Amino acid sequence: MPEHPLPTEQEVLGWIRQRRNWGRWGKDDQVGALNLITPAKRAAAARLVRSGRSVSLSRPFPKEPGPNNPLPAHHFMRTHARGKGGFSADYYGIYYHGIASTHIDALCHTWDEESMWNGRDPKKEITFDGARFGSVEHWAEGMPGDAVCVYSGREAWQAQDPERPYGRPFNPMQQQRPGLHVSCLPFLRDHDVSVLVWDMLDHLPIGYDIPWAVHAALFAYGVALVDNALLEPLARACAEEQRDEFMLLVAPLRVVGGTGSPANPLAVF
Amino acid sequence: MPEHPLPTEQEVLGWIRQRRNWGRWGKDDQVGALNLITPAKRAAAARLVRSGRSVSLSRPFPKEPGPNNPLPAHHFMRTHARGKGGFSADYYGIYYHGIASTHIDALCHTWDEESMWNGRDPKKEITFDGARFGSVEHWAEGMPGDAVCVYSGREAWQAQDPERPYGRPFNPMQQQRPGLHVSCLPFLRDHDVSVLVWDMLDHLPIGYDIPWAVHAALFAYGVALVDNALLEPLARACAEEQRDEFMLLVAPLRVVGGTGSPANPLAVF
Amino acid sequence: MPEHPLPTEQEVLGWIRQRRNWGRWGKDDQVGALNLITPAKRAAAARLVRSGRSVSLSRPFPKEPGPNNPLPAHHFMRTHARGKGGFSADYYGIYYHGIASTHIDALCHTWDEESMWNGRDPKKEITFDGARFGSVEHWAEGMPGDAVCVYSGREAWQAQDPERPYGRPFNPMQQQRPGLHVSCLPFLRDHDVSVLVWDMLDHLPIGYDIPWAVHAALFAYGVALVDNALLEPLARACAEEQRDEFMLLVAPLRVVGGTGSPANPLAVF
Amino acid sequence: MPEHPLPTEQEVLGWIRQRRNWGRWGKDDQVGALNLITPAKRAAAARLVRSGRSVSLSRPFPKEPGPNNPLPAHHFMRTHARGKGGFSADYYGIYYHGIASTHIDALCHTWDEESMWNGRDPKKEITFDGARFGSVEHWAEGMPGDAVCVYSGREAWQAQDPERPYGRPFNPMQQQRPGLHVSCLPFLRDHDVSVLVWDMLDHLPIGYDIPWAVHAALFAYGVALVDNALLEPLARACAEEQRDEFMLLVAPLRVVGGTGSPANPLAVF
Repeated sequence: MPEHPLPTEQEVLGWIRQRRNWGRWGKDDQVGALNLITPAKRAAAARLVRSGRSVSLSRPFPKEPGPNNPLPAHHFMRTHARGKGGFSADYYGIYYHGIASTHIDALCHTWDEESMWNGRDPKKEITFDGARFGSVEHWAEGMPGDAVCVYSGREAWQAQDPERPYGRPFNPMQQQRPGLHVSCLPFLRDHDVSVLVWDMLDHLPIGYDIPWAVHAALFAYGVALVDNALLEPLARACAEEQRDEFMLLVAPLRVVGGTGSPANPLAVF
Repeated sequence: MPEHPLPTEQEVLGWIRQRRNWGRWGKDDQVGALNLITPAKRAAAARLVRSGRSVSLSRPFPKEPGPNNPLPAHHFMRTHARGKGGFSADYYGIYYHGIASTHIDALCHTWDEESMWNGRDPKKEITFDGARFGSVEHWAEGMPGDAVCVYSGREAWQAQDPERPYGRPFNPMQQQRPGLHVSCLPFLRDHDVSVLVWDMLDHLPIGYDIPWAVHAALFAYGVALVDNALLEPLARACAEEQRDEFMLLVAPLRVVGGTGSPANPLAVF
Repeated sequence: MPEHPLPTEQEVLGWIRQRRNWGRWGKDDQVGALNLITPAKRAAAARLVRSGRSVSLSRPFPKEPGPNNPLPAHHFMRTHARGKGGFSADYYGIYYHGIASTHIDALCHTWDEESMWNGRDPKKEITFDGARFGSVEHWAEGMPGDAVCVYSGREAWQAQDPERPYGRPFNPMQQQRPGLHVSCLPFLRDHDVSVLVWDMLDHLPIGYDIPWAVHAALFAYGVALVDNALLEPLARACAEEQRDEFMLLVAPLRVVGGTGSPANPLAVF
Repeated sequence: MPEHPLPTEQEVLGWIRQRRNWGRWGKDDQVGALNLITPAKRAAAARLVRSGRSVSLSRPFPKEPGPNNPLPAHHFMRTHARGKGGFSADYYGIYYHGIASTHIDALCHTWDEESMWNGRDPKKEITFDGARFGSVEHWAEGMPGDAVCVYSGREAWQAQDPERPYGRPFNPMQQQRPGLHVSCLPFLRDHDVSVLVWDMLDHLPIGYDIPWAVHAALFAYGVALVDNALLEPLARACAEEQRDEFMLLVAPLRVVGGTGSPANPLAVF
């Protein structure tokens, strides 16, 4: 059925190493492919808005423990009296990488044995205080612009076997799951994609002796990833609106030294 | 100097009680004045975008303890090996109400002795599991639309006396600080404002025997508040762009039962 | 094989309701059966010490997610420079009830449809600020004294099927697991046991229409429970020391309003 | 008034470097001076118990923000239904080093420019997963035994000026506070003290070009420190019991890789 033969390990390494974007925006650049989302691109994205329909691409904040959520997010409530009235407030806590939370990966999030984005050494750049290079605050102006959304159908897949975890975030080597194959990398590079929004993540096992497949786009190309997006409502909206272009908005929390951010990406038609 | 005399307590209570929006969108409505941001309004907001310049209205995630930050946010780092490479990840934890974090207030956040938004009883609706009415997930499609931003100049005020806290979030009754006076309420109501984005909050002391001044707009009018925005860069951008209209984007985290959300609001010119 | 017939529901309800200790130490008492550990008892416990061998009864702080640990504890590290040197520090965070953490249950931890310990109403006493009655700070002087340790052999049981969770803390009704049967309640009451230290918890399903089996000892008798103790090393030490008496020490964290405490119980021979 | 002249920097460095205990219990030892608390010592400590009076040396879990508590501990409540009854549970979170929480310092907690305890390099031993050397789980059997308690009178000092912070944990270089002077080090070393329990910490400023004064006992001598103990009730009990010897019990949480532990130390007379 697949018309394309699987690439060789040499080809895969070539995509990651020969075609990487290091130095393309200067050797100290921490913005990566988001440099390509110029103000003009943003203005063009805004011109895509016609009906004004807005769709959230975010899964709910993952509070419930379960096979797909080994490190549940915290949500704790308080109330406080104030004069004759009062208020409620709450604590949110989340270790947001993994497969349960819709979130952005910053450029410092992954590396291979060579290095992080732009050739930096993670041993030096990742500190107890946060990342000193490639962290998420360099994207504080957000991503109102240009992105590729790849809807693989995670909800349908999961519904077939609700007890089967989509991923074990911290033991990926021992695991099988559907997702984007490493051979998608050249597409991202050929089209100068700035942001990849996806509901399934890397196909596992990777099948090559590399630590990261599509996630290599972070350190090789400087591409922003929006992991675990909820794309079923988007697909429905595209069908109903009879369009597959829209304005995408992603606004990471402004965390100095952060390796990414939980987010609620919006598509506006 | 003030041309307007201060309102009487009767007048203030009138703004809060006689003019409230309860039932305006149905007695079970949890969306409030954001009902006014129709798709058509969103499309009109997108048409305001011309140059594509994007400005973040978010203060940095408030990790550092200090007089203005009695409950600092958590940011903790980890690294994990993966094959020949690795990755970094981090935990974000925040009790985000108060005066340190740029955040959204949901309709369930405040109440007076009568009730919460739409006449609900906070004793019933605010539970250990989260708010059951007026919580933030009802705004999951975000706020790409219409808002009033009020720049009071918090940075300049704070620079005059860096050691003086702008607020003690949990003892507001004993405190003095500049901010919007309760007499701003009729403006919000008269103009059917959906979202108020502000850098200073309610003027304290309130001066009347009511628990909430401008924050009463939450439970009386159903207005969304974006507290502690960073508006100095926005003011500069308005001057440079010679416009004071732009598209505002605020995308709360999709927390079921949440009383609001930390956020990174964006203004796009 | 069982010589004793199972008790009827009436008998079980009788143990919980007819024999309860409410009012025994005053209607406002929040200390419960620990009132029985008088200074004289503590002195007697200290006299049991002969060899001075100390054994920890604590499982490791449960940081690792897994089938038995759906809400893993947090352990995050920081380092800070100080002059020519530095220091390390860490954050511990734990939702410690459940089956993963060795911890103390305070008297406010459980209730049935009638009430909490001493007839109090949990709706009034359990607040967003903590428990106002029966909380753990009333045991701040600790439990150097008298306890019953029941070693059921959880490690051996778990080793037979490592993937089978011992418990699903928040869905106990749907679950089967070995543990102490509700018919152990009269033993606790007849012997005026103050503290029960156990490695397995209530046998599930309970088999009667009651919310709590042995855990009813909290609200009915005022007995302190030390859940999920690690008793294999204690059993070994008892065999080697040829004694089954020792001084037990349990020192809960002094949390005002706390429903219990993680702890490292010590047995000294 | 002081009869003793202040030591020279050479003398101070001599106490820290010439007299250190590295290698005394083997070059890989992670237990330090607690090796001196043999079973025989523990048995002797138990024999000190006569009246059985138990005194907690713990301050309350520091939940309230304030000048002395820039990083307040978390205490969040939940309730859960169970059948016809229910239960309460809570989350405790604490970054426990500093001056607000009664806690134990493990041997890995401090270092100077030379190294950590036993000559180890903190750059290698302190990892994102926890400390790999000198961490608190090596003290899991607790400290039922021998200690020096130094009551300096922190409550009385604080009462004189409630608004003055006793410490700014993370900016100690800029600060003045009373406490034990570095010249106490020889006392600890001469008497082979295993555990120091104190209510005030190092006198600041240190007055010498060293990063740690009495806290150097951790990495130089392997002494366990119990910081911020509440010693006023102990002093009262000593007066009333007319004794200054008692059994001390400190049981750190069993956290693999932990740099210490919050604790509730008990003194039993």
